[in-house]
Amino acid sequence: MTTTDLASVYRNYIACLNAQDWSSLGRFVHDEVKHNGRPLGLSGYREMLVQDFEAIPDLFFRIELLVAEPPRVASRLQFDCTPKDSFLGLQVNGQRVSFAENVFYEFKGGKIVAVWSVIDKAAIEQQLQKNDDAAAG
Amino acid sequence: MTTTDLASVYRNYIACLNAQDWSSLGRFVHDEVKHNGRPLGLSGYREMLVQDFEAIPDLFFRIELLVAEPPRVASRLQFDCTPKDSFLGLQVNGQRVSFAENVFYEFKGGKIVAVWSVIDKAAIEQQLQKNDDAAAG
Repeated sequence: MTTTDLASVYRNYIACLNAQDWSSLGRFVHDEVKHNGRPLGLSGYREMLVQDFEAIPDLFFRIELLVAEPPRVASRLQFDCTPKDSFLGLQVNGQRVSFAENVFYEFKGGKIVAVWSVIDKAAIEQQLQKNDDAAAG
Repeated sequence: MTTTDLASVYRNYIACLNAQDWSSLGRFVHDEVKHNGRPLGLSGYREMLVQDFEAIPDLFFRIELLVAEPPRVASRLQFDCTPKDSFLGLQVNGQRVSFAENVFYEFKGGKIVAVWSVIDKAAIEQQLQKNDDAAAG
């Protein structure tokens, strides 16, 4: 696949997530996908995403930066959402938070076979702290 | 610059950091560089790096994944080091920790002009928790 093709496939993958079109997920995600070293497989990966949307009903993936060099894609995703309860071990409890995820994908046979993701937890902590300070002030 | 050229420049930049060759930093970093939205400029960027090495004397940048698509590079850096005191607000205090940084760079005129970095703070927290549990056990 060319760089352009790969970027296009990736954009369609993100559209699939935002549509919560789980029946199409297998078009983009390999049966033997690993996420941060964990061998989830397609069904485990789908389950992770379903749980993400349950925990964050207004979850929406927005691509801020996209760098493609076959067979890999790197993406900076931007989120602006309200997790219902705790998120990454933080008591968000329905507060609105904005944060980025910098994430790498490796493709095999046109599908995502490995993901290395880092979420900007420190940014969320700072926003919760600021809300706490405002509530106390 | 081609993809190959850009990847090569980036590898030389990382070698410059690992050598702490601050007099050469301006070959790789633009005078008006921004880091996570902060307009540091070359001198502020150098100061940030000098402070990183003071806080983490055995700091070493290892490239795990590199994705280049001009004018951008995305890199997953892997660290295995011992911060002296606190790091990212965590009381590391000389414990050995391993963590990744997923980071994007934008180049202008062959130099880094913008950086978007996310460090895997959650991974460090888990390691400190495990050490705490072992000490208590």
